[in-house]
Amino acid sequence: MIKGWAALGPQQKLQPYTYEPGPLNAEEVEVAVEYCGLCHSDLSMLNNDWGLTQYPIIPGHEVVGRIIAVGNQVKGLKVGQSVGIGWNALSCMHCRECLTGQHHLCPETRPTIVGHHGGFAERIRAHWVWVIPLPDTLYKAVTGPLLCGGITVFAPLQVFDVKPTDRVGVVGIGGLGHLALQFAHAWGCEVIAFTSSTAKAEEAHQYGAYHSVSSRDQHAISKLANTLDFLLITVNVSLDWSLLLKTLKPNGRMHVVGAVLEPIPLHAFDLIMGQKSISGSPTGGPVMTATMLDFAARHRITPQVEHFSLNQVNEAIAHLAAGKAKYRIVLDHAN
Amino acid sequence: MIKGWAALGPQQKLQPYTYEPGPLNAEEVEVAVEYCGLCHSDLSMLNNDWGLTQYPIIPGHEVVGRIIAVGNQVKGLKVGQSVGIGWNALSCMHCRECLTGQHHLCPETRPTIVGHHGGFAERIRAHWVWVIPLPDTLYKAVTGPLLCGGITVFAPLQVFDVKPTDRVGVVGIGGLGHLALQFAHAWGCEVIAFTSSTAKAEEAHQYGAYHSVSSRDQHAISKLANTLDFLLITVNVSLDWSLLLKTLKPNGRMHVVGAVLEPIPLHAFDLIMGQKSISGSPTGGPVMTATMLDFAARHRITPQVEHFSLNQVNEAIAHLAAGKAKYRIVLDHAN
Repeated sequence: MIKGWAALGPQQKLQPYTYEPGPLNAEEVEVAVEYCGLCHSDLSMLNNDWGLTQYPIIPGHEVVGRIIAVGNQVKGLKVGQSVGIGWNALSCMHCRECLTGQHHLCPETRPTIVGHHGGFAERIRAHWVWVIPLPDTLYKAVTGPLLCGGITVFAPLQVFDVKPTDRVGVVGIGGLGHLALQFAHAWGCEVIAFTSSTAKAEEAHQYGAYHSVSSRDQHAISKLANTLDFLLITVNVSLDWSLLLKTLKPNGRMHVVGAVLEPIPLHAFDLIMGQKSISGSPTGGPVMTATMLDFAARHRITPQVEHFSLNQVNEAIAHLAAGKAKYRIVLDHAN
Repeated sequence: MIKGWAALGPQQKLQPYTYEPGPLNAEEVEVAVEYCGLCHSDLSMLNNDWGLTQYPIIPGHEVVGRIIAVGNQVKGLKVGQSVGIGWNALSCMHCRECLTGQHHLCPETRPTIVGHHGGFAERIRAHWVWVIPLPDTLYKAVTGPLLCGGITVFAPLQVFDVKPTDRVGVVGIGGLGHLALQFAHAWGCEVIAFTSSTAKAEEAHQYGAYHSVSSRDQHAISKLANTLDFLLITVNVSLDWSLLLKTLKPNGRMHVVGAVLEPIPLHAFDLIMGQKSISGSPTGGPVMTATMLDFAARHRITPQVEHFSLNQVNEAIAHLAAGKAKYRIVLDHAN
């Protein structure tokens, strides 16, 4: 039996919940959870915002822990290793995406908290490919948020071939954005922060932004016309998309990782005139996640974290839902 | 003095019109026009659909002719050469785009028919960089439409690195689409035509499509889910964008060259889930245009053309405006 915290339905608080995981599958790994991040997508899943939630749900998909059991077909991992598990827990392992290292795009990928119990529990299981060994030099207590938030903003830099000579804008300086600033800065880029809060400008500078601009100041944004190679949207609210597209140079790309629910009214001419692109992406594959962890360790990229004990999970959720998290929350399972 | 055909205001028929071009600039070339395509964007400009038109306007930007004069700073061209001129006639030659061969993205690029007199005239002038020598093996009477329509659908294959192993969809089998089918086929791709007219399926096959699907048959389109690498939109009407995005494989790209005026309601999740992109582009640079002409000559890619004499320009325009052109129109200046 595995003890954790589950919501039994929408809008319900988490409560202690025990489940029987059954025998360990041949390709599965079982991990004793030491820390687990609380991500905004845990909230979205708890509220069934995306229509995907299966109750009871044990949230938690930014898991850091230690391997306590491996199935007899598990490759490359052993009991005792320090590992992380992020948004995904299983993939088919034989589709073209899996066979080219893009397991996050596998049509049968199972997210850690969709029809699968997550990391707000003493133990968790996942397919070995999604159990990522941690570099020794990362501080485990703050590593969880890299496994979902971190890879979400790192992957676009690699997938879409952002160059160190590029000028990169980051819209929204929060849980994702403060990581994006650090990654883009370490990537060698000139980084511009777009933030709704002038109070965050100084912080954005500390995270690696060379300049900040108010995302509510149309005049200031219009002065950035034709200056950015890449613009990363980390917020999930509607913006002045046409104005933001104008900040891109010819061949520029606006990339969306915030799951904006309202449609973006896209004017074809805004793309045609400067040969521009808009794209989106969900997290990244296992090798890219490992690469991201190495890069974060080498550049000392660290999420800014508030800690709660697992027993305080409902307080932590209320804190995040109120928009007060600064910038990521980690639940400490040992406390 | 140069004799041509101009519209003096919106909704007006073209009439004989003579203008004084002044002395030839040092970097300009003067071309005696032999043939000039009539493109849908000539119609858009005549009607001022894009708010760019300066009257009187002499349309015509798919020019084929022979050089009759060169300014004293013209490079690489000489009197007597057979050449083409497309959508653009001038660029600044010193911006980053011009200096990297992307003159079509120069912020000061002047289109051939915007504040500049086009090819429905006995002679035309353009900066030497936009005067493209024609391969000997192209048949001049049908080459005009390659210089705007052709490069518009060829450029995305090169710019966005479409692979010969890719599955490419082409939406709309008309002036642009029938060229796109030929280019994508010669590129080595498996090509799928999306056409509103079942009558065009057989023709699409002759132009290089392996399969055709009705662009009005949602069921047939939904069966293509997750099968295309690249989807080229050549029409300028609103479509079921969400459904079309689903035809893309992970990492797929939908590329728009039809200037849809209504906004495309873009759902961020449709991009995020499969790491997809949407982009647009306007024609291509001079070197890419020359490459396109070489490729067309080598693969015998030929626009399907209806010929009118220049004196019949108003009949030709009425024919195109009525949707009857099949698929491109060329005005023959000698007749």
